[in-house]
This record gives sequence, structure tokens and C-alpha cells, in this order.
Amino acid sequence: MEKFNGNAVVGQSGGPTAAINATLSGVIRGALAAADKGDIRKIYGMRNGIEGLCEERLVDLCKIFTEEQRFTDLEHTPAAALGACRKKLPPPEQNDPIYDRILDVFKKYDIRYFFYIGGNDSMDTVMKLRAYTEKVGYEMRIIGVPKTIDNDLDCTDHTPGFGSAAKYIATSVKEILCDCAVYTTKAVTITEIMGRDAGWLTAAAALPRLSGGMAPDYVYLPEREFDMDSFFSDVRTALKAHPNVVIAVSEGIRLPNGTYVCEGMSKKVDAFGHTQLSGTGTALCMALREEIGCKTRAVEFNTSQRCAAHIASATDIRESVAIGKKAVEFALRGVSGHMMIFVRSKIGYKIRIDSIDVCEVANKVKRVPDDFITPSGNNVTDRCLDYLRPLIEGEVKYRTEFGMPVHFKI
Amino acid sequence: MEKFNGNAVVGQSGGPTAAINATLSGVIRGALAAADKGDIRKIYGMRNGIEGLCEERLVDLCKIFTEEQRFTDLEHTPAAALGACRKKLPPPEQNDPIYDRILDVFKKYDIRYFFYIGGNDSMDTVMKLRAYTEKVGYEMRIIGVPKTIDNDLDCTDHTPGFGSAAKYIATSVKEILCDCAVYTTKAVTITEIMGRDAGWLTAAAALPRLSGGMAPDYVYLPEREFDMDSFFSDVRTALKAHPNVVIAVSEGIRLPNGTYVCEGMSKKVDAFGHTQLSGTGTALCMALREEIGCKTRAVEFNTSQRCAAHIASATDIRESVAIGKKAVEFALRGVSGHMMIFVRSKIGYKIRIDSIDVCEVANKVKRVPDDFITPSGNNVTDRCLDYLRPLIEGEVKYRTEFGMPVHFKI
Repeated sequence: MEKFNGNAVVGQSGGPTAAINATLSGVIRGALAAADKGDIRKIYGMRNGIEGLCEERLVDLCKIFTEEQRFTDLEHTPAAALGACRKKLPPPEQNDPIYDRILDVFKKYDIRYFFYIGGNDSMDTVMKLRAYTEKVGYEMRIIGVPKTIDNDLDCTDHTPGFGSAAKYIATSVKEILCDCAVYTTKAVTITEIMGRDAGWLTAAAALPRLSGGMAPDYVYLPEREFDMDSFFSDVRTALKAHPNVVIAVSEGIRLPNGTYVCEGMSKKVDAFGHTQLSGTGTALCMALREEIGCKTRAVEFNTSQRCAAHIASATDIRESVAIGKKAVEFALRGVSGHMMIFVRSKIGYKIRIDSIDVCEVANKVKRVPDDFITPSGNNVTDRCLDYLRPLIEGEVKYRTEFGMPVHFKI
Repeated sequence: MEKFNGNAVVGQSGGPTAAINATLSGVIRGALAAADKGDIRKIYGMRNGIEGLCEERLVDLCKIFTEEQRFTDLEHTPAAALGACRKKLPPPEQNDPIYDRILDVFKKYDIRYFFYIGGNDSMDTVMKLRAYTEKVGYEMRIIGVPKTIDNDLDCTDHTPGFGSAAKYIATSVKEILCDCAVYTTKAVTITEIMGRDAGWLTAAAALPRLSGGMAPDYVYLPEREFDMDSFFSDVRTALKAHPNVVIAVSEGIRLPNGTYVCEGMSKKVDAFGHTQLSGTGTALCMALREEIGCKTRAVEFNTSQRCAAHIASATDIRESVAIGKKAVEFALRGVSGHMMIFVRSKIGYKIRIDSIDVCEVANKVKRVPDDFITPSGNNVTDRCLDYLRPLIEGEVKYRTEFGMPVHFKI
């Protein structure tokens, strides 16, 4: 049997995380190791995902990653060093010309290995490319490597990138708890956290509870209906216990009528009379001031949730590199059309990397399960914290210059 | 001559910083060293500043700080471990009964040394307490130790707490620059930074420029009038050069008519028809969408600016401990009614700690000087970066538990 051989290409897609470049590093490390054995010849990087592939914006990564320092710098650089895109491919059966274009590029560069690091939409791309290349009989190994801070991909214990975002949130909330504790005046602080459909990141705000000291009084996830009266009652109860109440809410919590809290509660009107949604935290603060009359403050964590690489989880970065490397190994073994996954040991925390048919994963959302949420729906259970804890363990060490982290740039 | 002797008390006041506890640690370290020599007997901590002093909420710090680990934990804990207050004393000539109360407590606990760590209002307290104790002939050594993330205290090269906030901002902006660079679509990101009257923290957003890579396109300080037409023109110019424009603005920028940008531009209306100010960044984003039609995003750094101890500047923490220690040394030498200050060497970066009559400092604001701002008023000069650079140098090492920093609690 003739040895399957050719070049590889890797791309990044979707919203950035603090660990997507660690996975890129893993894929490059794996591919270069394979190149040493003659299994893969070259590893290209596509700029801005599948969009850049179509435009032949490819870089020869073998020429760039010539020393170990570049890998470690890359592993501690947030976002996507190759650039990303949000392109979703049309169904392969529509015979859209984009597929011909992609095939032309594959043939021109003799690309036989395709690694795509991304979230749900990227797994959709992997699924469609597999269907298309099988249909036209172009032999290829196509692997999806997950990443998302939202942790909402199915079939994997967790997603690369989530642990770092969770560590950022846990650390920041813990610091804000210190900040809130300094005054004796009654005040409510509401931290608003990303994750429109799944409450994984919001759940991470409860992690300071593990230390036995201060912790958020309430944690509201989008998995539960948000009832304003119960909320007011919760806040009144907490204010009786101590003056500084700290609450974490998901940006995606909804009122019983199905509208987002931020939609239902408040509107911003600009100088031209146009309305715009305000944040969920701000909306709840306004409601509290009206109902209870207490001092309030909304803290929106915003973009740093997905790019605060300086406080990345060492576990997350290590696993993200490992899953990238493993993706190459699996492809070399003939796996294709799969997404790489993490499988957690039944006891303790040991992670095994495996893969699963991407059709099992694409376009599904994994929500926080019922036994991770308290019966009253206003906090998470200890079981949830047990799940989260190992994911944020370990501090990263990165190079600094002028007191700031060094970031890799292609 | 009889040896001046007695007990000491230390308090924290005003808004939290990541370094105010480091100064507290320095004062305690200094006082315990003096206790060993018999110069100070006991060191008390007042809970919630002068408010707690009046209520005799005093803790014996000698009993709490019995091992080195407690000091180092305290030095890496954000906010004010003793609690803070925002109380401003009435003029001493008004003979307000609060002064009698304070004097009673001083006498009851034989307090002869008073250390107050805080910002402008706290220096006002130091000034008034000195005037009062001199008037009634109660011999005492009263020393103010500065802290503020805003760096707007006069007579000192910089304030403890500023370097850490500046490092948080520089690091976060550098990470957000990576995040913004991943897409090819034209977009403007506006980071909004604390500092209503002085632009020191906003200036720190320009620090990524030192690395020679990506940096914010524009940095607007409150020291300059903010003109909307110039702003639109600036943004158009930047969008021609590259798709991802990143801007830093102070929350306190004002339009030529003197109103804050956030007042002049937009209003939030809650469910009850009440209006509320939105953020400056959000207001500018709305204006840009209307004028240029581009994608925009506002990032408000919020509370983390003053409490992100995990990314504190090692220089800031070291200096903050040192200035607290030195305050005790100065008090022992007979200095009173002074604020401790940092004096920078003419060449290089060497810091000498000195003190100055608190009357020279209280109720003054130090703004960013003209030669730190470019002639066009939309960025800072290299001279400004030279000033800022050493203040953010060095990474702190702190204890962690469950992947989160350990925080000290009294």
C-alpha cells in the first residue's frame, strides 16, 4: 500500500480565547514532528480561516517556527495568531462554487491534512468539508479541534479556552469581593458574565466559595428562568445578612416571558433617538434602585474574559497544546471528520484525549446540567464546583518586556 | 529629656487599590520593628478608618501579624483589609464634638502615632487632626501615606497603587489589541478608563507602544477638550490604515461646552422613565455608528482597575511596603503632619522616600503635564511613556489555592 502523504493546513475560526493559540502551537508541534518522520511534508497556516484559504493567503509555518521560544510565546498569546473568520459554508449538496475553489487550493498545495480550531460553526465546516471531499473522492484527513470560552460544545468534558476564561472570572470576582467589603454602606454589586445560552462561565463566579471566605451571594444562570420578584426577595435576604451583596448573572438570563432581562428592563436612547440594549447587570441595578433603593454597581467583564492570557489556566494551556498535537497523531492514523475531545477520569482529574464523529457534535449546545444548579435556581452546587475546580488550576509563566506580556505575531 | 512613647494606630481610607494593603503591611512591619526597640508599644488597626476609630473598633495588629506569611498574603490582597470610609472631618475651628471623641479614644488607648493611608480626603484628615491636636496640646505624630490609582496627588513622583492599576490597564489593552486583530472587518473598539479629572491611567493604555507592535490608535485624556469632529476625523484616518481601530478614552473627557461626553451624548431610560448616564465609551460608539456606520464595541474596565492584585506591579508593591515602613521611621524621628512622598532620581529610575507638609498636598490635583500629551491632543508622548514604564515593571508572586490567589482576611 502506498503511504498516504501530503501537506497539512491549519486554521483558526470564531471568537478568540486565551488558549486557541496554544492549540495552534500543538498542531504545529505535531506536524513538525510528523515532518521529521516524513509523514507530513509541510504545514501551512491559513490566515483568517477558510476565507483566507480561498484567497490562498497561506503561510509556511515551518519557516516561522524555527525555535522553541516562538512556540512558548505563541502559547501565551491570546486570540488567534493566524486571524479568524466567521464564515459558514453552504450545504455541500448545493454545489456552491466555493467548494470548487477550496478543492483547487487543496490540489494546488497538495493539502491532505486539514486542522480547524474553532467552536460550533467550525465543526460545521469540518462536517461539510468531509462530506464534500468524500463526494468528489479527494482523499483527505479533516480534523476539528474545539475551542470556546463558553464550554458549550457537546461530547467533550470541557473545551480548550474555557478553563482560562473561568480562571479570569473566578480571580476577578474574588478580587471584587475584597473591593466590595471595604465599606459599611449597604450596596449591591452585579457582575455580568458572557455566555448567552449556557451558564458555564457564570458558574465559575462561584469558585471563590472553595476558599471558605467571601463568595457571591447569588449566581443566576441562563438555564433557569429569571423571576424579578424572587430576585428582589433574594437581595433583601442577603442585605439583612451583610452590607455588601455581590451577585453574578449571565448576560443571557431571560424573564419568564422569554425576553432577555436586558431587553425587557431598559433601553438606551442615543442623541438621535435610536434605542439600544443596555447590559443585563445595568438593567438589574436600575430595577434594584427603584425597588429597594440601595446603592448598586454593575461590572461587565467584557472582552477580557476571552483574552486575559496573563491569568490563563496552566491546565487549560497544557491541555490545549496536547489536544492540538493529538489531532495530528489521530489524522496520521487515518481519522477524519472527527472532533477531538477530552474524556475525564471517573475518579480524580485525569484527562484522556479522544475523538468523535463531528456529526455528533456540530450545531448542538451543552448546557449546565440540573444537578449543577441549586433547587432554588439562584446558585450552583458543590458538584458544579468539583467539576470546575481542576480546570482553573495552575499559573502560567510567560515572557515579559517593559512590564507587559510578550505576544507572538506572525 | 523623657523618651516620647505610646501606641500607634493605622487606618485606610478612600477607594481601594491593589497596593493599599502593601502599605498597611509596611506600617505594621515598621511599627513591630519599633516595638522591638521599645519605641512603640502596640500597633492598633482602625476598622473603616476614622469612622471605626470613633466607635473604638480597633484591632490589636501585634496579635494578628505573628508570622511572615500573613504579611506576604496581606501584601497581595487588594482593597483595604481594615475596611475604609469616606468620612471628611469638619474644619477643626468649628469645635465639632467628633474631635473630642477622637481625642478621648487617643487618650484611652494612649495613641501617640497616627498613620493614615489614603488619597486626597485622607490627607485632609491628617491636616485637620494635626491642627486639632496641636490646638489642644496633645502631643502626637500624625503621618499620611498616599495611595490612589489615579496618581493625581501633588508633590510625589507617583502614588502607591497607581503602578498596579497602570499595569492592569497596559496588559489588558495589549490583550484586547490581539483580540481585535483577528478579523478583517472594519471595527472600532473603545476602552474606557477611570480617572475623571486626571488622565494618568488612560495614558497607561498607550504603554503597549513600547513593544513596537500593536498599540491604541488614539488616547484621549481629560486634560484636553474633546471635539467630536476631530474624533470622527481621527477614526476615519485610522480606518484607512487598518481595519481594527483601538482607542482609549478617559471616563472624564468633556466636550468644548464643558459637559462630560457621557452626559452630552446619550441617556439611558429605565422601565420607569428615569434617565441615567451611560458610559463614555458607549456614548462614543453610538456616535460613531451614526456618523461612520462602522462596527463598534465599548469596553469599560471598571472595578478591576483598582483591585486586580493578580497583575499588580512588583515595583508598586515593593515601594508601597517601603513607604509604609518609612512612615514609621519618620514618625519616630519626630515628623508630624506630613505626607510621605516618592522622589525620583534625575537619571534612571531610583526612588527616594521623603515627606512633605501635608498642607502642600491636600485638596490639590496633579494633572498630566503638557509635554506628556501630543500637540494634536489625541495621544501621549514618548516622554510620558518614559515616565510610566518603570512603574509597571515586575511581576508579583502570590500564594494560590484552588487556582485562585489567596487573600488575607482579618
